[in-house]
Amino acid sequence: MRGKVLQLDFSTGIIEGARYWKRRLSDMAEAFEVRDAVVKLLKEGDPLIYEVYEVEGVPEQTGELVWSTTVLYPGKVGDEYYMTKGHYHRDLNCAEVYLVLTGRGFLLIKDEKGPRALPVQSGSVAHIPPGCAHRMVNTGLSPLVFFAVYPAQAGHDYERARQEGFGLRVIAGEEGPEVRS
Amino acid sequence: MRGKVLQLDFSTGIIEGARYWKRRLSDMAEAFEVRDAVVKLLKEGDPLIYEVYEVEGVPEQTGELVWSTTVLYPGKVGDEYYMTKGHYHRDLNCAEVYLVLTGRGFLLIKDEKGPRALPVQSGSVAHIPPGCAHRMVNTGLSPLVFFAVYPAQAGHDYERARQEGFGLRVIAGEEGPEVRS
Repeated sequence: MRGKVLQLDFSTGIIEGARYWKRRLSDMAEAFEVRDAVVKLLKEGDPLIYEVYEVEGVPEQTGELVWSTTVLYPGKVGDEYYMTKGHYHRDLNCAEVYLVLTGRGFLLIKDEKGPRALPVQSGSVAHIPPGCAHRMVNTGLSPLVFFAVYPAQAGHDYERARQEGFGLRVIAGEEGPEVRS
Repeated sequence: MRGKVLQLDFSTGIIEGARYWKRRLSDMAEAFEVRDAVVKLLKEGDPLIYEVYEVEGVPEQTGELVWSTTVLYPGKVGDEYYMTKGHYHRDLNCAEVYLVLTGRGFLLIKDEKGPRALPVQSGSVAHIPPGCAHRMVNTGLSPLVFFAVYPAQAGHDYERARQEGFGLRVIAGEEGPEVRS
């Protein structure tokens, strides 16, 4: 790979020529708390929660970098806002950087010192330190689109994040989004 | 550092709370070809070529990531467009990722196979492979603002890039920007 330039549409997050994948509710049903709401939505048609456009062909070598753009749709499962599945890196030395392109929400991170919810909006640049589980939550009415860069050797550990949970949930309260433990 | 979110202004590239530094023509005078034009501009007031906003306090450890935003101003030194100083990484295993936020220009890269000039514009995502010298050139009338992420252990080797040169120059021709060897 001798230098590759792809074109991102800032409003939609779509990148021509990138690897595309998506998650529906059925791919991450356990992430949401209210089981009745999950079952109801699955019966009604299994909504699309997010889509990812990711650079292809980067070797999994130390020093190499992978980038992606995520389009996290607005919506709720019960009172809980749509969110990404969330993961640790398999290599716990690996950080990640997010740049929010459009929308608003929270970045949830969690390590041995506990969980945190960091508010983000268009233009927010987040440094996710090594060793943290991380997840994005969309509390807005439009897609939350964010650009991410991570070390190519990072790997993804979704299972540990699923088993532990994040210790915080972002819920639609009467006066707007609420972060609850 | 337990998760840090800073706010980027997409139109100006300014990031509150980030480390700020800048380069004037006198900091990189040898990068430009036409000596008379350099001398004239230095006498007239040493123009600002670019400004950088960079995250602070990231440990230089493998797996960690540094991000920055660069505001590369429009302008020319003789017929040659303003550009960044350009560097190799000291650790030649380290890649870099650029996301162009506003403006247009070229990404110049160079390795043992030779130089390349890749056109970029707002929304372009560039993967710079390990081992390449890299430089951005602004061929537009407004600032070229780009977001960059690189491994914290990368380091910068400006001296080798200066000695070798890039083998390509981007010049204002009669019908627009021209890439010349």
